[in-house]
Amino acid sequence: MSLPDLSLYTNEIECALRQTLRRGDAGNAPLYGMMQYHLGWLDRDLRPHQGRLGKRLRPVLCLLACQACGGDWHRALPAACAIELLHNFTLIHDDIEDNSTLRHERATVWNVWGLAQGVNTGDAMWSLSRMSVLSLGAKGFAPETVLSVARLLAETSLALCEGQYLDISFETRDDVTLDEYLRMIEGKTAALLSASLRAGALLGGASEVQLAAWGQVGRELGLAFQIIDDILGIWGDPAVTGKSAASDILEGKKTLPILQALAWEAQQPGQPLAALYAGGSLDQSKVPWVLECLERADSLSFAQNQAALHHEAMRRALASIGGTEPAVSTLRALTASLLERRY
Amino acid sequence: MSLPDLSLYTNEIECALRQTLRRGDAGNAPLYGMMQYHLGWLDRDLRPHQGRLGKRLRPVLCLLACQACGGDWHRALPAACAIELLHNFTLIHDDIEDNSTLRHERATVWNVWGLAQGVNTGDAMWSLSRMSVLSLGAKGFAPETVLSVARLLAETSLALCEGQYLDISFETRDDVTLDEYLRMIEGKTAALLSASLRAGALLGGASEVQLAAWGQVGRELGLAFQIIDDILGIWGDPAVTGKSAASDILEGKKTLPILQALAWEAQQPGQPLAALYAGGSLDQSKVPWVLECLERADSLSFAQNQAALHHEAMRRALASIGGTEPAVSTLRALTASLLERRY
Repeated sequence: MSLPDLSLYTNEIECALRQTLRRGDAGNAPLYGMMQYHLGWLDRDLRPHQGRLGKRLRPVLCLLACQACGGDWHRALPAACAIELLHNFTLIHDDIEDNSTLRHERATVWNVWGLAQGVNTGDAMWSLSRMSVLSLGAKGFAPETVLSVARLLAETSLALCEGQYLDISFETRDDVTLDEYLRMIEGKTAALLSASLRAGALLGGASEVQLAAWGQVGRELGLAFQIIDDILGIWGDPAVTGKSAASDILEGKKTLPILQALAWEAQQPGQPLAALYAGGSLDQSKVPWVLECLERADSLSFAQNQAALHHEAMRRALASIGGTEPAVSTLRALTASLLERRY
Repeated sequence: MSLPDLSLYTNEIECALRQTLRRGDAGNAPLYGMMQYHLGWLDRDLRPHQGRLGKRLRPVLCLLACQACGGDWHRALPAACAIELLHNFTLIHDDIEDNSTLRHERATVWNVWGLAQGVNTGDAMWSLSRMSVLSLGAKGFAPETVLSVARLLAETSLALCEGQYLDISFETRDDVTLDEYLRMIEGKTAALLSASLRAGALLGGASEVQLAAWGQVGRELGLAFQIIDDILGIWGDPAVTGKSAASDILEGKKTLPILQALAWEAQQPGQPLAALYAGGSLDQSKVPWVLECLERADSLSFAQNQAALHHEAMRRALASIGGTEPAVSTLRALTASLLERRY
């Protein structure tokens, strides 16, 4: 299933982002320039650039949830903008924490301007995210509502940091369990998707019961989404994913299929996969061995099955909400396309 | 003048900080442990530690301003706590950006746990800061008031990032002007001191006119404070400052006295100081040469005079407010002791 046309929303999101970032004078213009570079609007010389923009998935989810609850999605734009800036702040810092020099084939912020400016540019983007959410009152929302959304995003930021803490600590551990892994991706991936939907629903006037269901939709979507990412990181087609084949194996990442295979072989005579991962970095020559271990443990089927279970749980939660058309159909099509990703 | 006894306030601040950081379960306890290490409560093995705590200057200013406006300072504690966590988040990231391995003779967070955990621990502390300010409603403040304080801190975070951007960019520039330098320290130092007083005054029920005056007190205090820091960084007694003698010269920092001397010698035949600073890193053997250049330009008198002017402006702004005793006298004594620092 292909991605539905979301340009109605993404165009407005892009306008709102540009307005939020239209700051900075002669003295500190480059700080705003670095943020605009990260968002794909400028090149590394800070000249206008027609590049690939992000999918703006999270803010789109926020606006669709608002609309599905019967709200006017235009009024939710400051929240959508805050969510996209929060997401991108985490990407700028993740690139530093993972020592990633490239993101979607472009040099990362710290790679162009150095570590110090990289950390600080992420911090500045997060400040702008906060200011955006706190400006919701200008759209006519009651102070209590603005505070609820601001609190939701603050709690979500903390969940992201908790997930990131676990992810970093897993790199130097060889005893990570599947449960710990799921908890990590709940923080790193599911929390913000869940918050995006809940923020939109809150601004659309959803009841407490509906809010909980929206949270469930986002959580299950996030888990399914991340598990599919894990599958693509091992078995994805480089021409489609834009990453090298088996990139997660080469980076030694302990993702769901690897952890399941490690747990499976712990019950068998001989632990060849554990030996491979205990030895530090993996090179290209080891990839076929790892793939063979994963096949023996039937890891691909396991991961596909897990993704399908979360996908189904998401569909059920979404169906339980009801909601207003056409937003619900668009949401159903969008989430399905994300979970049947081949683009 | 010695520091007045502030334990009435600092004890309560410490309690509020500990409550805010009392989170984390078996899975992510070390994330909270790293934050507690930074605040001086744990050692690097995350065992309880009786060490030097921070002065908690900014939250004390917040509580005193609240009290001086006739408010109950206990109710302002979540804001004071948010301010201290915001300040400490910037310290954790500054240590990374400045490549500092030690802070007050203790290893910095990134130095103990690595760059990735360092960046993320700072982010987590900032999340907790936001949650603390957004919890002010539980102390009975109206949602509008809570939003005003949250907005003030969000804007201040951005000002800190703008100041930090300038500071980092100055390192690789040899054409920094005194005006640019003052703008940088307005962001890096004065903005948060000013916000601390304004947040407290806002919660104490100050009028718009009074709020502006409190902002002025904080701004002048911040500028005077930073200029005195610059003086101590060159001429301070190592036994008192806890840093090596002439530490700012050895680090090649372009602080106020250096910039004034560079501007002075630009009007003279020969530019020995510019030549010294253009040559990259300065070693111990160059320190006497730099000090001689500063003496020729009368830089110490210039800096002392600038600090005195800002100190006087702060006193006048504070006097214009009036305010309730004993908070105003304590504030006067506290600010005077900060600006006559020899401890």
